[in-house]
Amino acid sequence: METIFQHRSIRKYKTTSIPKEILDKILLAGTRASTTGNMQVYSIIVTKDDAIKKQLWEAHLKQDMVLDAPIVLTFCADFNRFNLWCLQRKAVPCYDNFLSFFTAAIDALLAAQNVALEAEYHGLGICYLGTTTYLAQQIIEILDLPKGVVPVTTITMGYPDEDVPLTDRLPLEGVVHYEKYHPYTKENLNRIYAEKESLPSTKELLEINHKETLAQIFTDNRYPRKDNITFSQSLLKVLREQGFMNNE
Amino acid sequence: METIFQHRSIRKYKTTSIPKEILDKILLAGTRASTTGNMQVYSIIVTKDDAIKKQLWEAHLKQDMVLDAPIVLTFCADFNRFNLWCLQRKAVPCYDNFLSFFTAAIDALLAAQNVALEAEYHGLGICYLGTTTYLAQQIIEILDLPKGVVPVTTITMGYPDEDVPLTDRLPLEGVVHYEKYHPYTKENLNRIYAEKESLPSTKELLEINHKETLAQIFTDNRYPRKDNITFSQSLLKVLREQGFMNNE
Repeated sequence: METIFQHRSIRKYKTTSIPKEILDKILLAGTRASTTGNMQVYSIIVTKDDAIKKQLWEAHLKQDMVLDAPIVLTFCADFNRFNLWCLQRKAVPCYDNFLSFFTAAIDALLAAQNVALEAEYHGLGICYLGTTTYLAQQIIEILDLPKGVVPVTTITMGYPDEDVPLTDRLPLEGVVHYEKYHPYTKENLNRIYAEKESLPSTKELLEINHKETLAQIFTDNRYPRKDNITFSQSLLKVLREQGFMNNE
Repeated sequence: METIFQHRSIRKYKTTSIPKEILDKILLAGTRASTTGNMQVYSIIVTKDDAIKKQLWEAHLKQDMVLDAPIVLTFCADFNRFNLWCLQRKAVPCYDNFLSFFTAAIDALLAAQNVALEAEYHGLGICYLGTTTYLAQQIIEILDLPKGVVPVTTITMGYPDEDVPLTDRLPLEGVVHYEKYHPYTKENLNRIYAEKESLPSTKELLEINHKETLAQIFTDNRYPRKDNITFSQSLLKVLREQGFMNNE
């Protein structure tokens, strides 16, 4: 459908605020996504307050979309509400383990994508923030997330104040396998990555960063080992502290 | 948008096959979803073969949708392709850690929801299978998934052979928080769960299962402690074996 094929990440927003009835429709779209056993084990935090957005901006490594967007949506894996309901209904919940975290994360992410698409359908621009899991502990403190709740992704949202082209994607054969997974050959990979590697923007990136290949920009600059290790450890710590690693 | 608000999980399918151009459009919709750093660290396995579907059916705890659907789509977190590309381009990838797994899982899940919606837009019915993470090791073996690849969700897909009503959802106030997370009170929870608890289908479930509350059906029957612990352990084992737990 049109909306899906027109998606581009929007990072600059007008100050125009989003009417309540539009926002409600967008959030309602989130709740129509598939959810495990219809448990809806997620929560959506809608932040508009400038002071709180400033704190979130710090936690998101100072990406300006967080300050500039009229609305910041933090999607959380949330078993807290479900657990409380169980306890209030003479049931003993056992959702303090890794499977339950991942189940809740799936719920939160499917809801997030519905929200993103419904927002775009109403003429808004959105951007996902991968930084949500990097400094999740800070986000937990800023948003008062209780045990059983872990932020998994963030969407900034507002009326677009920039016009950006569609981003390149790998050809379908790059990501789709028929019947079973088929190993990639050297020739496969050359073909799959050819378009991306020959883009003018790629050549520009290589010059600016003094790198020989685009892959090196990912491994050395954008997602280096040191960061991945640090954030892996802190994310696992968050899962333990939020009560999702009682697996015995 | 209409498609989002009309979603219901469809579990019975006609034998009508899905035209290749429609399937390609659906898969292409998946690739338009947001993806971390435009890395597209996911793969989609399209299974139509009856013998492989029969194996997947076993791995999905014999849910008949897997046998009956003309197409089964397994969405995988996939750093294998990206790692191979890095190695082929004189770059040293360090994506064998938990953060990288979760990043790739987010990519796979956002793509899955685009695929689900585009399929529904073309008149197809879909159902997500939460069982993908339960016996992930079996799915890995059936689909020949190499190191760096973990299945995170599955969608069965076909032209609907049933007409089902829209499923109930918690009211918006049940899942949305403004500015920060607000604790749930006893009164909150009673109000949020009131509609669900008073449905005729809930009353029927309680009678059949001889339970006093709906929550007990979740904790005792559907998602009991024993299963959650078993599957948490096996999923973490899968992450280690697929090379995503080198966090030091």
